[in-house]
Amino acid sequence: MASPPVPLISKLVIIGVGLIGGSFALALRHAGIVKHIVGIGRSQINMQNALRLDIIDEQSTDFQAALSGADFVLLAVPVGQIDQVMQHIAPHLEKNAVISDVGSTKMNIVEAARTYLNDHLAHFVPAHPIAGTEFSGATAADTQLFQNKPFILTPLPENDPDAIEHVAKIWRHCGANIFYLQPERHDQMLAAISHLPHILSFLLMQHVNDVSDGKPMEFLQLAGSSLNDMTRIAGSSPEMWCDICLDNREILLTQIKNYQQKLSHLHQLLDHCDRDALQKLFSDARDIRRNWQA
Amino acid sequence: MASPPVPLISKLVIIGVGLIGGSFALALRHAGIVKHIVGIGRSQINMQNALRLDIIDEQSTDFQAALSGADFVLLAVPVGQIDQVMQHIAPHLEKNAVISDVGSTKMNIVEAARTYLNDHLAHFVPAHPIAGTEFSGATAADTQLFQNKPFILTPLPENDPDAIEHVAKIWRHCGANIFYLQPERHDQMLAAISHLPHILSFLLMQHVNDVSDGKPMEFLQLAGSSLNDMTRIAGSSPEMWCDICLDNREILLTQIKNYQQKLSHLHQLLDHCDRDALQKLFSDARDIRRNWQA
Repeated sequence: MASPPVPLISKLVIIGVGLIGGSFALALRHAGIVKHIVGIGRSQINMQNALRLDIIDEQSTDFQAALSGADFVLLAVPVGQIDQVMQHIAPHLEKNAVISDVGSTKMNIVEAARTYLNDHLAHFVPAHPIAGTEFSGATAADTQLFQNKPFILTPLPENDPDAIEHVAKIWRHCGANIFYLQPERHDQMLAAISHLPHILSFLLMQHVNDVSDGKPMEFLQLAGSSLNDMTRIAGSSPEMWCDICLDNREILLTQIKNYQQKLSHLHQLLDHCDRDALQKLFSDARDIRRNWQA
Repeated sequence: MASPPVPLISKLVIIGVGLIGGSFALALRHAGIVKHIVGIGRSQINMQNALRLDIIDEQSTDFQAALSGADFVLLAVPVGQIDQVMQHIAPHLEKNAVISDVGSTKMNIVEAARTYLNDHLAHFVPAHPIAGTEFSGATAADTQLFQNKPFILTPLPENDPDAIEHVAKIWRHCGANIFYLQPERHDQMLAAISHLPHILSFLLMQHVNDVSDGKPMEFLQLAGSSLNDMTRIAGSSPEMWCDICLDNREILLTQIKNYQQKLSHLHQLLDHCDRDALQKLFSDARDIRRNWQA
């Protein structure tokens, strides 16, 4: 008979029980490796949903009480609120509590940790699960959200190696595939594979609105799967994406410029009816896409 | 007992038996409204596949023989080849044959028809089914491809009303929802909901390649569903998309400029850390997306 799973976490505190925080809770419960889950969050309705859906065992508004005896703390608030949350939790963290986050940017979060969690840097392991949908809140939480999804750890030089491995182990239990990156490299890569794509998607939705003189439904009723796919992520949380863009501002500004140059180049090719160059450009893009999917 | 469907087409000639032409054949067979299907195409391998998959009954390379007795002709070649195909078929068309196309642009095709199909304008009804995938060729054909998909007719003033209704009726049998537009309006709308999105997708794939210094797989292994959705159509046929972009060049050049202005505006907001304006922009885009999906 297989032995039951050992609880890796006795008391888990999740700050921000949204899509990611909620799915993390569900995945750990499913894996049987957590005993007790406390949720902290801004929205009373969302917290009630989290309780009702058995995502958390207990809701709290008191950081001191919630963090007392907690051995794992997950910061799952929008990245724009991380600084403030770190300030709130710092005085109440247990000495050996392991702390991690799920923020879509890493350089700013590392900087904030060095400011506000200075006494806990051995046990604060920054991380980013690459998973999500365009929906948000506890009601969107899904036990399987991280299954076979990439999970990026950006450990600090100050980190206790055991804390790093502990975080990795817990996320492996959620089904994620673990990668290790420097924070700056993470932000560079994510700008290209996630942040810029979201900007392009939001702007494409705006473009359809403008070309249709503010009557987009006339156009959208004719749209096929291409526009549907290209604008799915335009349904994402504006607040969250504001935070991410501002947090990864320097890198994004550079990448937006790069992308603009690509559009200008294509505009020129089209203006000059340069079929060969245009076809090579599309063809190279298709090869990258196909190699990726293969 | 329900009576069997009446064949609306005795002899159908499909020129270009790819994803769209092949799916049209399969859908008509499935509806039981066609007796005999002749395919004409450039690629011998593709035509063999079309025969093997029972998409066509007969393959031909002889326009005269193929068009003899044909009562419906579908032009399903890439838009860049439409002119040439019209020239080839014009001398051999039956007097009452109805001709239609599936081109993703309409103004240029109408212009070509006025040049090459001048004697047949009563029966040439330009059209565009909004359906497709990133795959091409007869092997990608799918009986259900047009089910519940928009189908745009852009009739000519010269068209025989019966010919227009005949084309509409046949596509209704494929499961499509029929819309009527002016050719110029069609090209304007399709630039926004399809052509520009494809350009953005091809360029995004190139962007990832460039930011990764030509090693895109290192980035792509970390990509989530957002990049996957945003680059699915970058897997589309480069030849076909070259044709479409060049065919709808004037409108696309204008819309690329419009989109560039949007990117510049966003760059500016981000540069100035204008959170309120940024959040409003994302929020408006999300509202459009959600209204569309609702």
